[in-house]
Amino acid sequence: MLRAIADEYRTNLFESVIPFWMRHSVDREFGGYFTCLDREGAVYDTRKYVWLQGRQVWTLSKLYNEVEPRRPWIEAARLGVEFLRRHARDPQGRCYFSLTREGQPSFYQRKPYAGVFLMLGLLEYSKASGDLDCRREAEELFWLVRDWVADARLLGRPALEGAPALRQLADLYVTCSMALELATATSDPRYRDILAECLRDARLHFHPGSGLLLENAAADGTPRLEVPEGRLICPGSICEVAWFLLRALAFHPNERQQQWVLSTLEAAIEFGWDRQHGGLFYFQDLEGKPTLQLEASMKLWWVHIEAIVALAHAWAIDPRPKWRNWLERVHEYTWAHFPDPAHGEWFGYLDRQGNVSHTLKGNNYKGCFHVPRGLLYASRLLEEED
Amino acid sequence: MLRAIADEYRTNLFESVIPFWMRHSVDREFGGYFTCLDREGAVYDTRKYVWLQGRQVWTLSKLYNEVEPRRPWIEAARLGVEFLRRHARDPQGRCYFSLTREGQPSFYQRKPYAGVFLMLGLLEYSKASGDLDCRREAEELFWLVRDWVADARLLGRPALEGAPALRQLADLYVTCSMALELATATSDPRYRDILAECLRDARLHFHPGSGLLLENAAADGTPRLEVPEGRLICPGSICEVAWFLLRALAFHPNERQQQWVLSTLEAAIEFGWDRQHGGLFYFQDLEGKPTLQLEASMKLWWVHIEAIVALAHAWAIDPRPKWRNWLERVHEYTWAHFPDPAHGEWFGYLDRQGNVSHTLKGNNYKGCFHVPRGLLYASRLLEEED
Repeated sequence: MLRAIADEYRTNLFESVIPFWMRHSVDREFGGYFTCLDREGAVYDTRKYVWLQGRQVWTLSKLYNEVEPRRPWIEAARLGVEFLRRHARDPQGRCYFSLTREGQPSFYQRKPYAGVFLMLGLLEYSKASGDLDCRREAEELFWLVRDWVADARLLGRPALEGAPALRQLADLYVTCSMALELATATSDPRYRDILAECLRDARLHFHPGSGLLLENAAADGTPRLEVPEGRLICPGSICEVAWFLLRALAFHPNERQQQWVLSTLEAAIEFGWDRQHGGLFYFQDLEGKPTLQLEASMKLWWVHIEAIVALAHAWAIDPRPKWRNWLERVHEYTWAHFPDPAHGEWFGYLDRQGNVSHTLKGNNYKGCFHVPRGLLYASRLLEEED
Repeated sequence: MLRAIADEYRTNLFESVIPFWMRHSVDREFGGYFTCLDREGAVYDTRKYVWLQGRQVWTLSKLYNEVEPRRPWIEAARLGVEFLRRHARDPQGRCYFSLTREGQPSFYQRKPYAGVFLMLGLLEYSKASGDLDCRREAEELFWLVRDWVADARLLGRPALEGAPALRQLADLYVTCSMALELATATSDPRYRDILAECLRDARLHFHPGSGLLLENAAADGTPRLEVPEGRLICPGSICEVAWFLLRALAFHPNERQQQWVLSTLEAAIEFGWDRQHGGLFYFQDLEGKPTLQLEASMKLWWVHIEAIVALAHAWAIDPRPKWRNWLERVHEYTWAHFPDPAHGEWFGYLDRQGNVSHTLKGNNYKGCFHVPRGLLYASRLLEEED
């Protein structure tokens, strides 16, 4: 059964997902990628969103590096890298959020994530191309992102005395994801140290009563913040952080911490699963209080593929039936709702009941990243283990 | 029938809506208002959101000024005004978006709207209290907001060469709403001139093919912007702007422009009505392309009460059956879905099918404003005309 699922994932990845992006997304005129693509692949917004440019460079380079060195993949990756290196950063080295089709800056977001995905793209591309400038730029960017995460004033966000002092799970997992790639690509011990730091910091998000990781922990590590952000649960984040931490544990083996990570994953899936309509919620309040996010009860593609990757990791290291059962359950829901056999790729957004609420295949946050990464990683894990 | 609806609105306003806010929202310890209230009125976030502080001051002062000079209303308004005057503005005179319960700045948004609602609250309160400082501050703020709308760099937003050059319908109607209050309260001719400017500028949003007003028009007044923002339709915005413009026309009578405004209202209701599940959509794409807003197909309380107010205005000046029919249709949907007889006030957010998706009565955008204003204005119009 799991072997059959792995085969389905590979088929979907190479016959539906990647062809969709290669056919519709690459801008051969100005470079970079269109990501606002409708159900059939038509462009409905020509802007270039920097998160998604970096992510697509990463995905295409990764396939080239680890699946097969196909020329169209690396050539499309190069179109992204060149566009990003020309246009993505402002005179202070910070990254724009979006650019026009031609590369003029369009929007600046006071967040570090555009830098994260630019860094990941440059590093993976440098492995494929041997371009040492890219690699140097990626490493420099890693340390800049560290600074931006530590002090958002560097991004132009004012420090206000009444702002809740919190640490975000997203900051932890993007740091972990970057450090994992660098710890693998280099022998610099600092990246391994940062993975150890991530493993320590994850505990600051732990909520003992529920076994969940809070999306926002108090910065001082002590009591829970008495604002909705302090009670916010995003099952998708917990799944994503779980598999990053399991990979970080390969650098710092610790059986007890591994069990702890698995326990947070199990708690997230149990808490996040919608027992009425199936699927995992996007956001929830720890105490069942109202959420400020209007999209809280929607079912999102990335939450589900991240859950699959995390559960595949769990099953690979701890082959107990509960992981297999959850994996099959999340797979069945996902497979019945998200992929679009008619036009390729996946739908991204369902309402709580499971109806497709947006027929788009890409937008300013959904691009060529979570689906192909998840299908690649999950299929490998399930092939190894079955 | 319409007389009976007017009675229902008055009953709902004075027996359900206002008691809910007076009972649960006023912070008698630190001043200002809690607006993050769950279904039963319990506070789930103690922060004070500046838009909603100003709006509640306006509502309570308006009721005091125009319905009955009840002491609890003006005392609660004073608690809001004092809190805002102590805490709402930064050293440069700009307005924070949110404050802690005690009044420390918590978040700064690069938008002019906190200033708009602070201005409206101060002006209405000054009429109730005779406080001339409030009135002066309101007038000064009006001109500051004008500057902020004209140049967002004053709010700290970078001017980027690739940003779409657009003018927002929201900027038009907040300007119109402020100028209407000032043109009524003062004899300064500049406010009437600004109403004439709003009537002119509204035409820049007109899309001839559909008869709709675009949420974002090209700043130079010519071709439609080829980004999703340029195709964005918000039926609630068109309804709100319609009744502001109809009121502005009382200062600058023009039969032809009145008919034009009514035509945009009719187009908005016809385009925005969900023929499958009923209710008005939140956001739509003019050409049926995907929207970037995840909450696009949800049904929101303010869209529906604004539609009712706009349709009541239309019916009052143009008593043709089509207005009465739409009014009754929107009323029936609204009345069946939003008010909460069990605990008072209205639900704010439904999914497309009409299920309550969030049981909260208030949050960082929903407070004591659209519902009471709409019930007051609509009941007056329907009493006059039936």
